[in-house]
Amino acid sequence: MPHDELKQRVLRANLALVEAGLVTLTWGNASAADRRAGIVAIKPSGVPYDRLAAEDIVIVSLPGGRTVEGAAKPSSDTPTHLHLYETFPDIGGIVHTHSTHATAFAQAGREIPPLGTTHADHFYGPVPVARPLTESEVAKDYELHTGRVIAECFRGRGIDPLQIPAALVHGHGPFAWAQTVEHAVENAIALEHCAQMAALTWQLDPPACTIPQYLLDRHFLRKHGPSATYGQR
Amino acid sequence: MPHDELKQRVLRANLALVEAGLVTLTWGNASAADRRAGIVAIKPSGVPYDRLAAEDIVIVSLPGGRTVEGAAKPSSDTPTHLHLYETFPDIGGIVHTHSTHATAFAQAGREIPPLGTTHADHFYGPVPVARPLTESEVAKDYELHTGRVIAECFRGRGIDPLQIPAALVHGHGPFAWAQTVEHAVENAIALEHCAQMAALTWQLDPPACTIPQYLLDRHFLRKHGPSATYGQR
Amino acid sequence: MPHDELKQRVLRANLALVEAGLVTLTWGNASAADRRAGIVAIKPSGVPYDRLAAEDIVIVSLPGGRTVEGAAKPSSDTPTHLHLYETFPDIGGIVHTHSTHATAFAQAGREIPPLGTTHADHFYGPVPVARPLTESEVAKDYELHTGRVIAECFRGRGIDPLQIPAALVHGHGPFAWAQTVEHAVENAIALEHCAQMAALTWQLDPPACTIPQYLLDRHFLRKHGPSATYGQR
Amino acid sequence: MPHDELKQRVLRANLALVEAGLVTLTWGNASAADRRAGIVAIKPSGVPYDRLAAEDIVIVSLPGGRTVEGAAKPSSDTPTHLHLYETFPDIGGIVHTHSTHATAFAQAGREIPPLGTTHADHFYGPVPVARPLTESEVAKDYELHTGRVIAECFRGRGIDPLQIPAALVHGHGPFAWAQTVEHAVENAIALEHCAQMAALTWQLDPPACTIPQYLLDRHFLRKHGPSATYGQR
Repeated sequence: MPHDELKQRVLRANLALVEAGLVTLTWGNASAADRRAGIVAIKPSGVPYDRLAAEDIVIVSLPGGRTVEGAAKPSSDTPTHLHLYETFPDIGGIVHTHSTHATAFAQAGREIPPLGTTHADHFYGPVPVARPLTESEVAKDYELHTGRVIAECFRGRGIDPLQIPAALVHGHGPFAWAQTVEHAVENAIALEHCAQMAALTWQLDPPACTIPQYLLDRHFLRKHGPSATYGQR
Repeated sequence: MPHDELKQRVLRANLALVEAGLVTLTWGNASAADRRAGIVAIKPSGVPYDRLAAEDIVIVSLPGGRTVEGAAKPSSDTPTHLHLYETFPDIGGIVHTHSTHATAFAQAGREIPPLGTTHADHFYGPVPVARPLTESEVAKDYELHTGRVIAECFRGRGIDPLQIPAALVHGHGPFAWAQTVEHAVENAIALEHCAQMAALTWQLDPPACTIPQYLLDRHFLRKHGPSATYGQR
Repeated sequence: MPHDELKQRVLRANLALVEAGLVTLTWGNASAADRRAGIVAIKPSGVPYDRLAAEDIVIVSLPGGRTVEGAAKPSSDTPTHLHLYETFPDIGGIVHTHSTHATAFAQAGREIPPLGTTHADHFYGPVPVARPLTESEVAKDYELHTGRVIAECFRGRGIDPLQIPAALVHGHGPFAWAQTVEHAVENAIALEHCAQMAALTWQLDPPACTIPQYLLDRHFLRKHGPSATYGQR
Repeated sequence: MPHDELKQRVLRANLALVEAGLVTLTWGNASAADRRAGIVAIKPSGVPYDRLAAEDIVIVSLPGGRTVEGAAKPSSDTPTHLHLYETFPDIGGIVHTHSTHATAFAQAGREIPPLGTTHADHFYGPVPVARPLTESEVAKDYELHTGRVIAECFRGRGIDPLQIPAALVHGHGPFAWAQTVEHAVENAIALEHCAQMAALTWQLDPPACTIPQYLLDRHFLRKHGPSATYGQR
């Protein structure tokens, strides 16, 4: 089986979401792309996590979304994942959850601002909310349009998707991504934690504003890009 | 034992409530109906979950509520369950908990509105609060009247109990149901999660209003009814 | 060892507080009285829970508080426990914690009102806050005075300690009790849960008021006293 | 290996932070000093906790910060730790986390006031927030300056670091310390718990003020200093 390792990684990423408390019932999915092979490995639709095995992970073509391997139907959110892989050429893994606090921000239609260095370590600015979908976008190709409004939001604001590797879908919940699916899981965990701390910060100090740009720079660039010094490199 | 499988399912449903963190001490119960056999299997009253075994599950007649099998006394909420089974002919499982956030909404007397797609995936509109019980309804046949005010609420508003498979009892807590007890447990979990996220959303944006009808339609009908596309069907 | 069984019960009660998430570090203690033997079994002072064994439980005389059995020093809160046993002759177990939400009420100096039936199932009215201790009461016999202000609060308001089996010490935290230490643990768990739900209810509906007296009666008397019908009796 | 025991202790302290729920991903670190040997043992930078072994713990010189033992790069926060060890001669262990509630206070720029005896048991007054770092302090020797603003805060207010063994770094998160790394972990746990309870107390009673000085004295001095009576001494 040529895609065994990718399936194993996608399985582990999906299970890591449950372990981290980001996923309730079947409300989440993780995928990974192998761009050289032109495929994406993704969770099957609506399968309970405790019965999920590597062979259930579905392989679909990128672009196209045709099922290449696997008996199950891929996640209903597959068209969103595929559109993000097509639009953001540098990303290799995507995670979608309905994690409690990030979803509350999505439901309130509020971006998550950088109120501290925890945020700055992962997101180089506010995590934006894509615009609400119109009635016709929901009626037809809903999941594809979900990917499109995210891409539109990043393009419109000139955001580099590796500098702010997450977005909130209005009235729905968060998507997070990264160069690998393992890092996409970490970004989804960081996003939920930052959302929770932002709400608590506002409770303590309603007009709490964002950290200064120089602190945002310091933290984000300590961990990302050519001058990164964090970790064992 | 003719009802062994049903007892096993009701046992597992009761234990699943504890695992999901919806039940503290003995504050919860799950039941399942076998309408062909004219019976309901329900948790015994006040038995700690860690000592609960399948043979403790009590079988009562539907309608009637006479104990058919089992040495223990059935849950004190049995008349509520029976009235719901009698009034809502399509449901096959009922769950009652005092889960934290759904109970807070019940205590505040506020319905849980659909603020996002997580809600829409399970509940096709706001989860209503039944009217408070009067003094005489509490004094006599209290548990029966609890079922009656739920039924009255759904009838009065013309709500299909399979489209909004849960209700809040004023000053008390939530009931959730479904065609099977396994799905009733899932609805109770979804209800608690949606209640928590609704409260957090209001904290971020006090006048947060409900999602548009077309998004509610899209999500609910993606998972329910003849045009459902979610999951492995 | 004549008090082995009592020590085992007190050990299990102390560990149950940790399992229920009511105790952080060593901030809690449980005791049980054997009134016939004139003794109280109580947790030793400052011993980490993961090293606590039945033989560490200290036996002190009631009244008096002289160590009768055990090499360790009894909990620093022992004089509070002893005063409550002396003043409330019907109680047989006491639990003290710094559980998060009940302690927040104690720090805010607010009683926990009966906002729902969960509260009514355990506490037949608001859980009161004892008056703050004066400087001289803190300076000398602090722990004894802690017991005294609780007793004063119940006597002054004419509260039966078995009908409202808990109190908040102002700026400190909750004490809960019952006829047995096992039920005292349950009351401490219920208290924390009710405190959390009361705070959430007020967040949803600031002027949320208490449930009607007839509903309070119905729930409390369903579980307590001569007409109780709940459980397997 | 001369520093084996110290490495084992630092490993256990780092893992205890994860178990206590204070650390998400790799956002935390614990260190211990051996002042006689002139060294500090500290977590390596960015290594996941589930792969951390005692031999990964890095030994650096105190003062100086030169790596004495260990193949890995020490935590990026090492200069902060070293400056605190140099400035506070009585401390022997330091813990840094981004724990949820203490970080929210740091992000809001608010000190954690003593609202109850739980706080008084560990911190003899409010836990202060150091002033924000200037742009030039962030640009060069950022981690060293983080230690310096903490030291400046304590010196400027005349605070004894063993009486208030923690500080909040503005827009960042908490540091806690003690004479041993094991007690530093306990102080970090207490800090998070007190921060959560302070926020909840303010929610119940916005103008909630601190406990009286005599109660603060009583609790802190019951557990610390020559007249301590708590625990098995």
